[in-house]
Amino acid sequence: MKWKNEGPIISSLLDTDFYKFTMGQLIFRSYPDVEVEFGLINRSGAPLAKFIREEELRAELDQVRELRFNNSELHYLRGTNEYGDRMFGEDYLQFLKNLQLPPYRLERAGDSYHLSFTGPAATYWEIPALAVVNELYFRSQIDSQSRFDQDVTYAAGISRLQGKIGRLREYPEITFSDFGTRRRFSGAWHDYLVGVLAEELPNQFRGTSNVRLAMEHGLLPMGTSAHELPMVVAALAFAKADETQDSEEILAGAQQEVLQGWWDLYGPGLSIALTDTFGSPFFFRTAPEYVARDWKGTRQDSGSPFSYGEETIGWYTKYGVDPLSKLTVFSDQLDVRRMVDLHLAFRERLGHTFGLGTNLTNDVGFKPISIVIKALKANGRSTVKLSDNLAKAMGESKEVARYKRAVGYINTESDECVS
Amino acid sequence: MKWKNEGPIISSLLDTDFYKFTMGQLIFRSYPDVEVEFGLINRSGAPLAKFIREEELRAELDQVRELRFNNSELHYLRGTNEYGDRMFGEDYLQFLKNLQLPPYRLERAGDSYHLSFTGPAATYWEIPALAVVNELYFRSQIDSQSRFDQDVTYAAGISRLQGKIGRLREYPEITFSDFGTRRRFSGAWHDYLVGVLAEELPNQFRGTSNVRLAMEHGLLPMGTSAHELPMVVAALAFAKADETQDSEEILAGAQQEVLQGWWDLYGPGLSIALTDTFGSPFFFRTAPEYVARDWKGTRQDSGSPFSYGEETIGWYTKYGVDPLSKLTVFSDQLDVRRMVDLHLAFRERLGHTFGLGTNLTNDVGFKPISIVIKALKANGRSTVKLSDNLAKAMGESKEVARYKRAVGYINTESDECVS
Repeated sequence: MKWKNEGPIISSLLDTDFYKFTMGQLIFRSYPDVEVEFGLINRSGAPLAKFIREEELRAELDQVRELRFNNSELHYLRGTNEYGDRMFGEDYLQFLKNLQLPPYRLERAGDSYHLSFTGPAATYWEIPALAVVNELYFRSQIDSQSRFDQDVTYAAGISRLQGKIGRLREYPEITFSDFGTRRRFSGAWHDYLVGVLAEELPNQFRGTSNVRLAMEHGLLPMGTSAHELPMVVAALAFAKADETQDSEEILAGAQQEVLQGWWDLYGPGLSIALTDTFGSPFFFRTAPEYVARDWKGTRQDSGSPFSYGEETIGWYTKYGVDPLSKLTVFSDQLDVRRMVDLHLAFRERLGHTFGLGTNLTNDVGFKPISIVIKALKANGRSTVKLSDNLAKAMGESKEVARYKRAVGYINTESDECVS
Repeated sequence: MKWKNEGPIISSLLDTDFYKFTMGQLIFRSYPDVEVEFGLINRSGAPLAKFIREEELRAELDQVRELRFNNSELHYLRGTNEYGDRMFGEDYLQFLKNLQLPPYRLERAGDSYHLSFTGPAATYWEIPALAVVNELYFRSQIDSQSRFDQDVTYAAGISRLQGKIGRLREYPEITFSDFGTRRRFSGAWHDYLVGVLAEELPNQFRGTSNVRLAMEHGLLPMGTSAHELPMVVAALAFAKADETQDSEEILAGAQQEVLQGWWDLYGPGLSIALTDTFGSPFFFRTAPEYVARDWKGTRQDSGSPFSYGEETIGWYTKYGVDPLSKLTVFSDQLDVRRMVDLHLAFRERLGHTFGLGTNLTNDVGFKPISIVIKALKANGRSTVKLSDNLAKAMGESKEVARYKRAVGYINTESDECVS
C-alpha cells in the first residue's frame, strides 16, 4: 500500500480525464486555431498561498511541461475501442505525440494564486493543474500532522471507503464511475482506491475517467464531455454574429454545432449530452429531436438532480422515447446517500448511472477545497456558463446578461464573475 | 508503514521480554542444572491446527533455533544500566553468547498442537514461541481476507490505537508500558505501535518489555519477573522436603528464597514482587517485612485489581509504609477503560502504573487467542500456580491440592490441569 508518491505529482500525460482526448480531437479537427484562455477559479476561497509555496507549485507545473506522451501511452489511446473502433485518428495521435503543454501564468495574489493558460492546447492543463494544486494543498495539511495522525487520516480514508462500498453492495443495481481525478486527495490514494473498487465492486464499478488508471487497472476509461465546448463555440458564434440576429438562435445554433460535431466524430458510442451549459431547460427546448431519440443519454451536472430527472423523463416522453432505455449520468455533488436516494427515485422510470468525484477521491477527513479551471475566453471574448444553478453562472457580467436574456433567465446578482 | 514482515517472524533473540534475561541470570547463577519443562497451554481452545500448518510452524521454530546473539545485542545488554550499573555479569553474557535454544517437541493433537521444551534454557522459548504461534494464527486470519479488507483491518487497528491514545491523553498522570510481545498480532504491527506510542505519549509511555524494540526505539526495557521462578523453586523445595515438614513453611521458604535471590542480584532497581503465584493473600501474610519496606512495589496479575489494590494498601499500612510511595504494576486483562477506572480508584492512595498487553498489541478486530507457555515440571515434578483466580490454577491435581492446603485455599474443581 503506497499512500504518497515520492516523485512528481504528475508523471504521465495520461494522468488526466478521458474526455480531454475525446474533446481534444474535436478541437484539433474543427477549432485548431482558437486561442482559449483557461483560468483557475477558487470557489471556496481557501487561502491556497498560505499552504502552497509558490516555488513548489512552479516546480510541479514545470515538471508537467516536461512530460510527453510515450509510445505505450499512444498505443493505448490508439487501441481504445470501447466507444467505436479507431476512435482516435492518426492525425490526432501525431498531434499528441508532439504535444507539450503551453506555458502557464502564475501570480500570487494575497493569499491565493492567479493561474492561467492560453492557447489551443490550454485545455490539456485543466486536470493536471487541478490535481497538482489539490495534492500540494492536502500535502501541506497532512505534513502538519504527526506521523501517527497521518496514519489515522489514511485509516479514516479506508474506513470511509469501506462504508461506501458496504452501502453500495446493498444496491447491486447501482453502477458508477470514478470522476474524481481533478479533486483527488493525492495520486497515490486515487490509484489505491480505484484498485480497491475494481476488486470489491466488480459489477458496479464501471470504470474511471482517469486514463492512466484505466490503463493500469485494466478498466474502462470513462467520460462524457465538458462545458468548454459549447462555451467556446457560443463565444465564437456571438463574436461573428451581427446585432440583428436573435441571440437565442445564435446560442441554440452553437449548441447544435457542438452536438453535431460530436455525433459526427463518435456516433452513438460516446453520445451522452451535457445539458446544463446554458441551462437544461434551454437544452431540452432547443436540442434537435435526434438527440432524444438516438443519443445514449445526458449528463446532469448542476441544480437539483431530482428535478432534472423529472424534466428528462418529460423530454423523452415528449418524443415517445422510453426513459428507461436511456442513460442519465448524475455527476454533481454526489455522495453515496444521494446516489441511493436518486436510484430509489428513478429506478423504475429512468435509466441512470453515477460519476462520483470529490466524495470518492477526497474523503479522508480534511475539508475539500472547491477549485475549478474553466475556459474564460475564446479569441479574447468572454465565455459564459449559466448552468442549472444560477449561483454557478460565470463570465463577464455583460455577457452573462446577454446569455440569460437569450435563454429566458431572469437576471440575478449572484453571478460568479471572473473578470 | 510496514504491516507485515516478509522475512521470518523472529529475527533476533532480543525479540523477547526483558525479564527473560533478568530471570535468566538468576537461573544461570543459582539453578543452572534444573531441567524445566515448558509447555503450550491453549486456554481458549482455538483450533490452532486448522489455521496453522505444521510445516510452517516447524519452519518458524527451526528458524528461531538458528538464531544467536550478535555482538551489538550483547553490547546492548551489557550497557543496560537503568536498573543498576552492569546488571548483567560477563559470565552470564558469555552464556548468552553461546546460547542456542534447545530442541522443541511438536505434535499435532486433533485440531490443536502439543508444543513443549525441556532443559535449563527452555525458559528462553516462552516469548518467541508464543509470538510465532500468534503471528501464524493471525496471518491465516488476514490471509483469508480480501486485499481491501486487510487494509480495513489495519485501519481499524490504527483507529483503535488512536482511541486509546486520545483517552490516555485525558489522564496525563497515567503511565504504562507495553507488555504485549507474547500476544501480539504481528511483529511489524508491534514495532509500529511502539514507535507511535513513543512519539504520541512521550510522558506517559514508560517503555516496552520487548528488548529489541526498546533498543530500536531508544526506550526503557521494562519488566518485573514471572511465575516460573517461585513455581520451579517451590517444586524443588517440595521434592527435597520430607513428609514431616509443614507445607506452608516449605512454600513460604521457596517464595522467600526467590525474593532474596532477586534482591541480592538486582537490589532496589528491579524490586517489583509478583505476588500471586500462590495467591496474593499468602504472599502478604508470609513475605518478609523488608519486601514491604524496601522494595519498589508489587505486580498484580490475576483476580480483581480493585480488591488487590485495597489489600496492598492494607499490607503497606500494617508496616507503616505510605502506599503512595510504592508502585503497584497492574498487568492483568487491562484495557484503557479499566486503566482509567483503576487510576481514579487509587490515584490518591496507592502509587501505580500499568503493563498493557493483548489489548495493546492485538486489537485490530480479530478475537485474540488465549495461549500461554508455562513451566510445567522441574526435574520431573509438577509445578503449581494458584494465582488470585482459582480458575487459573494449574498443575497436577494432587499437587494443586497440596499447595491449596498449604496456603489455606478451599479446594475446587475448576483447576486448569495440564497433565
